[in-house]
Amino acid sequence: MPEDRKIRLGAFMRPVTIHTAAWRYPGAFPDANFNLAHLKRFIQTLERGRFDMFFMADHLAVLNMPMDALKRSATVTSFDPLTLLPALAMVTEHIGLVATASTTYNEPYHVARKFASLDHLSNGRAGWNVVTSSNPKEALNFSREEHMEHDERYVRAREFYDVVTGLWDSWADDAFIRDVTSGVYFDPEKLHVLDHKGKYFSVRGPLNVARPIQGWPVIVQAGQSEAGRQLAAETAEVVFSGLSKKEVAQQYYTDVKARMLAVGRDPGQMKILPGAFVVVGDTAEEARAKKRHLDSLVYPESGFASLAGQLGCDISGFDLDKPLPEDLPPSNASHTARQKLVAMSRDEGFTVRELAQYIGGAFGTLEMIGTPAMIADQIEDWFTSKACDGFNIMFPYLPEGLDDFVDKVVPELQRRGLFRREYEGKTLRENLGLQRPENRFFPSKKSA
Amino acid sequence: MPEDRKIRLGAFMRPVTIHTAAWRYPGAFPDANFNLAHLKRFIQTLERGRFDMFFMADHLAVLNMPMDALKRSATVTSFDPLTLLPALAMVTEHIGLVATASTTYNEPYHVARKFASLDHLSNGRAGWNVVTSSNPKEALNFSREEHMEHDERYVRAREFYDVVTGLWDSWADDAFIRDVTSGVYFDPEKLHVLDHKGKYFSVRGPLNVARPIQGWPVIVQAGQSEAGRQLAAETAEVVFSGLSKKEVAQQYYTDVKARMLAVGRDPGQMKILPGAFVVVGDTAEEARAKKRHLDSLVYPESGFASLAGQLGCDISGFDLDKPLPEDLPPSNASHTARQKLVAMSRDEGFTVRELAQYIGGAFGTLEMIGTPAMIADQIEDWFTSKACDGFNIMFPYLPEGLDDFVDKVVPELQRRGLFRREYEGKTLRENLGLQRPENRFFPSKKSA
Repeated sequence: MPEDRKIRLGAFMRPVTIHTAAWRYPGAFPDANFNLAHLKRFIQTLERGRFDMFFMADHLAVLNMPMDALKRSATVTSFDPLTLLPALAMVTEHIGLVATASTTYNEPYHVARKFASLDHLSNGRAGWNVVTSSNPKEALNFSREEHMEHDERYVRAREFYDVVTGLWDSWADDAFIRDVTSGVYFDPEKLHVLDHKGKYFSVRGPLNVARPIQGWPVIVQAGQSEAGRQLAAETAEVVFSGLSKKEVAQQYYTDVKARMLAVGRDPGQMKILPGAFVVVGDTAEEARAKKRHLDSLVYPESGFASLAGQLGCDISGFDLDKPLPEDLPPSNASHTARQKLVAMSRDEGFTVRELAQYIGGAFGTLEMIGTPAMIADQIEDWFTSKACDGFNIMFPYLPEGLDDFVDKVVPELQRRGLFRREYEGKTLRENLGLQRPENRFFPSKKSA
Repeated sequence: MPEDRKIRLGAFMRPVTIHTAAWRYPGAFPDANFNLAHLKRFIQTLERGRFDMFFMADHLAVLNMPMDALKRSATVTSFDPLTLLPALAMVTEHIGLVATASTTYNEPYHVARKFASLDHLSNGRAGWNVVTSSNPKEALNFSREEHMEHDERYVRAREFYDVVTGLWDSWADDAFIRDVTSGVYFDPEKLHVLDHKGKYFSVRGPLNVARPIQGWPVIVQAGQSEAGRQLAAETAEVVFSGLSKKEVAQQYYTDVKARMLAVGRDPGQMKILPGAFVVVGDTAEEARAKKRHLDSLVYPESGFASLAGQLGCDISGFDLDKPLPEDLPPSNASHTARQKLVAMSRDEGFTVRELAQYIGGAFGTLEMIGTPAMIADQIEDWFTSKACDGFNIMFPYLPEGLDDFVDKVVPELQRRGLFRREYEGKTLRENLGLQRPENRFFPSKKSA
């Protein structure tokens, strides 16, 4: 690692907070998730805090919960990320704009075109979070009875990625001449027709959008299963990991960066950013009291619903006061999430009820609860221990939780020399320290 | 018709001009089609001119032309409409934002969600131009060997429309309570699960976006075939027609509005807006000279390519100096476009070469070339003769052609009392004089 290794910060903003009770917290905007004026305020504050990126997850359905829990969820109405981010691009100048787009229920031509358009409109600030879809309700919105099997989803995802990046390379960076005198608009030698034919897709190309400003929008992923790690090692430039223990995160970090070397990639060209749920107080006790108050606003059924959703199975037959059974019923849900929950219950002695309340609060993710100095200590410790390259920050309630982080934690990180005071570059890639990819069909003279 | 019937004006802006030589015209921006700063200037000028809407067509492929013509086309790189319009929504307040989305290569859940998001982000200014795809190159970008047959595309389009509008009605307008005290975010009685099962789609719903501000974004269509007219009569609120003769336009207007009555719709609830290619001069001779100069910049091969594209067949065997053969080879292209070209060649004595040059210029659409008063006369004549309710204006070159229309023609229409001086309402629907649709699952008390 070079000496100038700096912490990278993303803001996880769809939903704007993952805490199910956030909208009820005193002073919170109950409609934070679905109000453009609020979202504009948030992203402008994050830009003032020099965040690398505004990161939007996505769901292609109303989440799968019993109505008693669902009716308490602030996430059931939210903007399509690829419709919201172009709007937010117009009210910001520097911050990256990362949207999730599923490889399971999309066509690569649409995805390539939308991200290429966003990259041009934002002057090179787009990122694509490549996911496979695992919510069973999503299949039902796309004329399918059930989801594709887990590993097969990854095969499709890899092919999807190859097609999208191939389409982004349809045009050389200098293809467009626009010579008014001769009437020639582009150089035909600088146009490549992809003509992809694979297991899942046949896509001729070329894309009807010029090559993105960044070459390719930044490739983001979150996979932690065996298939997910390998896909990340081969393709990802930012990884959003959900690991909450430092030792496990260190193992993951070492493993994925080793896999990168094995496939011939520079490990510096991937930034691993675990999610971190951060509650800031002026004292440690104040921070803990805020978290306790927030958790007290969680409806118990919401926790059970979140747990059932994570496990992908019915939990009504489980004994709520015993640990999670090791022999869970079969499910097509994320393997990693299920294994993590079983391990958490076993290792930390959580009953099903406790697990549900915990997940109903903050999804079982890494928590940082304390003073700005305590939080900066934890960030610095993870970072210097090579458990991560930074974090995707999750705010407990909006706007206060976000304002606290920007106004109190960021200055502390800056004082320690861990985080930027000004953006280094113009594009998301430049700010993250990522190289601009060569066009595979039109290599530069240097490398040709 | 009520006495206060006013002319409606759309701006046809994708590509920003349909004239293939526009980018070469003296003073034109060669990159007008793909430069956000220019597009922002255009839409703000159109809003100053009180236009109803900024209208974007769409293509899901680089157009089908021989390279010798293609390399002269300014349209090969352009923004995805549903990515551009949210950005333009942030720099405007009143003008409608209409995007084309194909029913042939999209999923209704994605389309419903993106337009609902755009409608919320723009405070009720979205419109959806419902099309079927007929460019054979598009199929090849979506893992298909060939296009669906013409009439079957319309069957699918109608089902697609039913699903999208059903998803928009997933939530009653007042579903979201956000009661912080009780913790209830929405009223479960005001959520409808669509559970659509049809020939082409099975879509459960509900949509994960609140009902659009306008109830539904405005429904736009362009079909002129038998199947297209019927779909328009049943569903369209704005029709973009391509008719260039007043008598034919009158027949079309009468026919489609009669079809509306037959299906129980109020004919006032559809605005028929033919495309009009407008060149403004301070004298008639100056306007004609501008058009001649513009046409002189068309490369002959571009015209042949446009003609072949419209006909959906190879024209290299045709005698360029004779009329278009009546017995064209079979094709899956738009029936209407083919018939119009055959009729134009026969009735006006156009040779294949002349037809190609004409189409290479302005696509065989209605032309208005003259002084502001002459153009206002022609607009007024078509409007008062019930050949249309207004026009979709196509500019010959940018920015001059657009500025001329806004600064010279619009004031003339305003002086005549034919066109608004200020926007009447807040939403696109209100400005067009269209009713807000009832939610089919949650009718208001008045109508229940």
